[in-house]
Amino acid sequence: MNFRFVANQLGLLLVAISAGFVGLAIFGFVESRIPALAGSERAAVLAFLISAAVGGIAGAGIWLATRGPNKRLGRREALLLVGLTWLVGGTLAALPYRLWAAFHADVAPDQPFRRFVDCWFESVSGLTTTGATVLSNIQDLPPSLLLWRSITHWLGGLGIVVLFVAVLPSLGTGGKKLFRVESAGPRHEGVKPQISETSRSLWLIYLALTAACFLGYLIFGMSWFDALCHAFSTLSTGGLSTRDASIGFYQSVGIDTVAILFMAAAGVNFNLYYHISHGRWRPLWNDVELRVYLITKMVVLVVIAIPLVGHTIVLTTGEMVDGTPLNVLRHAGFAVAALHTGTGFGTADFALWPAFVQMTLIGGMFIGGCAGSTAGGIKVIRFWVALKVMASELEKAFRPDVVRPVKLGGSTIDAEMKLSVLAFLIGFVVMFILGAMAVHLAEGGDSPLLTSMTASLSCISNVGPGLGLVGPTANYGWMTPTSKIVLSLLMVLGRLEFFAIVVLFTPRFWRGG
Amino acid sequence: MNFRFVANQLGLLLVAISAGFVGLAIFGFVESRIPALAGSERAAVLAFLISAAVGGIAGAGIWLATRGPNKRLGRREALLLVGLTWLVGGTLAALPYRLWAAFHADVAPDQPFRRFVDCWFESVSGLTTTGATVLSNIQDLPPSLLLWRSITHWLGGLGIVVLFVAVLPSLGTGGKKLFRVESAGPRHEGVKPQISETSRSLWLIYLALTAACFLGYLIFGMSWFDALCHAFSTLSTGGLSTRDASIGFYQSVGIDTVAILFMAAAGVNFNLYYHISHGRWRPLWNDVELRVYLITKMVVLVVIAIPLVGHTIVLTTGEMVDGTPLNVLRHAGFAVAALHTGTGFGTADFALWPAFVQMTLIGGMFIGGCAGSTAGGIKVIRFWVALKVMASELEKAFRPDVVRPVKLGGSTIDAEMKLSVLAFLIGFVVMFILGAMAVHLAEGGDSPLLTSMTASLSCISNVGPGLGLVGPTANYGWMTPTSKIVLSLLMVLGRLEFFAIVVLFTPRFWRGG
Repeated sequence: MNFRFVANQLGLLLVAISAGFVGLAIFGFVESRIPALAGSERAAVLAFLISAAVGGIAGAGIWLATRGPNKRLGRREALLLVGLTWLVGGTLAALPYRLWAAFHADVAPDQPFRRFVDCWFESVSGLTTTGATVLSNIQDLPPSLLLWRSITHWLGGLGIVVLFVAVLPSLGTGGKKLFRVESAGPRHEGVKPQISETSRSLWLIYLALTAACFLGYLIFGMSWFDALCHAFSTLSTGGLSTRDASIGFYQSVGIDTVAILFMAAAGVNFNLYYHISHGRWRPLWNDVELRVYLITKMVVLVVIAIPLVGHTIVLTTGEMVDGTPLNVLRHAGFAVAALHTGTGFGTADFALWPAFVQMTLIGGMFIGGCAGSTAGGIKVIRFWVALKVMASELEKAFRPDVVRPVKLGGSTIDAEMKLSVLAFLIGFVVMFILGAMAVHLAEGGDSPLLTSMTASLSCISNVGPGLGLVGPTANYGWMTPTSKIVLSLLMVLGRLEFFAIVVLFTPRFWRGG
Repeated sequence: MNFRFVANQLGLLLVAISAGFVGLAIFGFVESRIPALAGSERAAVLAFLISAAVGGIAGAGIWLATRGPNKRLGRREALLLVGLTWLVGGTLAALPYRLWAAFHADVAPDQPFRRFVDCWFESVSGLTTTGATVLSNIQDLPPSLLLWRSITHWLGGLGIVVLFVAVLPSLGTGGKKLFRVESAGPRHEGVKPQISETSRSLWLIYLALTAACFLGYLIFGMSWFDALCHAFSTLSTGGLSTRDASIGFYQSVGIDTVAILFMAAAGVNFNLYYHISHGRWRPLWNDVELRVYLITKMVVLVVIAIPLVGHTIVLTTGEMVDGTPLNVLRHAGFAVAALHTGTGFGTADFALWPAFVQMTLIGGMFIGGCAGSTAGGIKVIRFWVALKVMASELEKAFRPDVVRPVKLGGSTIDAEMKLSVLAFLIGFVVMFILGAMAVHLAEGGDSPLLTSMTASLSCISNVGPGLGLVGPTANYGWMTPTSKIVLSLLMVLGRLEFFAIVVLFTPRFWRGG
């Protein structure tokens, strides 16, 4: 294990985040000229500058101390680096929240950012693009901190796409076939140039989509600040908003439509965008996962829309609208896009919808978006492969001699992939159950089972809101520190498709060269 | 598909059950001489006689009409027959309950047996050895009906052992390797004689164990009637009792110990007893599943006993005892044996135990006993194989090139078995979740999530009691008919290891010769 290079890269990460803090301090300084924000923003500027100093000095120190000629990034180094990035980066990203609460004179006594564990939860929730928050009065935060929250989403989303589409498959880790990257880059040039080239393309694609989303929001009436923050939260399928009522605050059909379209777009495998950006459209039409993704979304929409028609819909603002077919299409469509990609934005309080509708929405959270996207869940392709494998296993019960290959698109799914998909599914469910149990025990029975369970599922699927006491109009601030730590870990486990983290706890991982 | 032969065998089944009814009518006639029982028993005698007439005429008619030379019992015929046996047999077995309630003048107005769906639930719960009941005042039933309830357990348990150890593996269905029957019988004599020989041995073993259990109960002070009924319920890991307070009624250390030992014995693969009965002891020492079964039981006992020491234990009779180490060992040990084998007998109200203890007990229900036993759940061997496969999949994440065979005892688990075990696990969880959702929707939110979920898990694992409104001192009588039907189906799905039933709903099963 090349610990030196891993530490070196982590140092670089800290320096990069600290550089970002400096930029945010400048932004905060500009905003602090607005009298209403002055006190709060000055505290934020100080918080960012101190965080930058801490992160910058620590990062630069580590980086300098661990420089060396051996830049071998093997499979195990990559996994360790990824795990630590989330842990170390998450801790540094939480620092400005905590320091702001410390420096700001007018901060409310019950402001969650007075506790570091809450800051850490918010920061991990941001970086993992979960979007669960501990805050109840979001508008109390100064703009620079709100921007930082949304930036953590955007960075986390970018990191995950690059990691799963460009880096891990090139290292032979994380299921090449699952991400269908076989033909992604110019193979013959070797691994390193390929990673760089693909990463650059992905980052440009991500940037372009974010810019388009930003313009969309701007056109339909958001302020440029809100549009920027929400564009960051949309493309990363994060879900943190600058408003307590989330996207519902704007009450605009146009903004809702932009959000639905870009949430759906963020749930698509970025490898497909990569192909398109290189002029190859065929993979788009041939992609089974994309088809299943779109069709399941439509089916779910129809299934949940029917029982909603005619019922009053309560919005996240507390207002009520009639359940006309158009209103239902708008708000149910929004809920499907928001929950199934794991964004977690809200326009309506789906916790008030019929039990059957809630169950269907929750079920969709489990499936999530496409592999290689910023969306969460087990991913559509795993769901699809698992369905096919289950059907073929069923047939074996009465026709054990008939060997019918399980196909995906044109190609046969080999035994290896079948097994790894089913194992992933089981691992996901086990983590979800253990998480729900831990939260339930930590809350000492004060939280209903529904809350513990949907909190666990929502966090491991990187969605954000759940049901019960963590419903679309509630937040996670009331929970015990233990629950917050457990849920933060679930977010990271879910985000990194859990094997990447769990391996770090196996003795065999650390053994041998 | 040889429908004719399937129908023929079903006819035979009806005749056999009807013959049993005649026997019970005679027993009821004898009991009806006791003045206190006279009215109730006379109604029962009439109910049994009419049921015998209905079943006997229908069965004989079907049997005569479908006689023929083609006695081919292929894999598909066997699966269809098994599925229909539970359905048709369950319906006939429910008839005496319903008729008794119709004929008995003094029957309470809220007696559940006034509804056929409740009778069917009780009968399916009996035959699948689940032991969930709709009754609250069990002692109101006449002895002949109580005996019939316990006999359904015993027949169901015998049927399942013969089916999984002797019949299905010989037909190449149901995972030969899982039941380790490779060397079970004299291969060279062909399938049919082998099935008969093994079946006969199994039925004698089952009878001998039941007799031993009966004597044990008798020695420690049960009446011969209670001892017989409870012996039937113990060896089948059923759990229906002749008392509301279950085994707890007797408040006897001796009876509790006999129950613990024989419940544990009933959860062992009967193939091992078969070997022992043929003088082969080696398989017993070599059996990995048996070792895991006993060790997990011990570990769970220790884990749940520690938090219980020092706390008052509320018994199923309502009485309280101190949480001395000995009392804890007795009642926690009983709960582990009762819930983990899926018997569901009770001595203490475990719904009052700490949340962590309850979760551990519920987790054990999911695992259940050994394959080829009368116990429910996914079975210890599947749990063990799944654990090993998950560990090996985890290693693949960082060492994809290292191929380390997954071993069970001495032999390597092949890819086929790995896949089928994981698929089974997923199928089990999916059925459990769908069941919990269906019950939750059917009860319209009146039942807490805990009740819906543990009811579903308890029924699919063939345990009996759950938590919440179906806890160890409650019953299923209050539920809607929809829930009762859903739970009855879950019992059958769980009992037949679900593939055997689900295949009946696939179009491919019915296609072709």
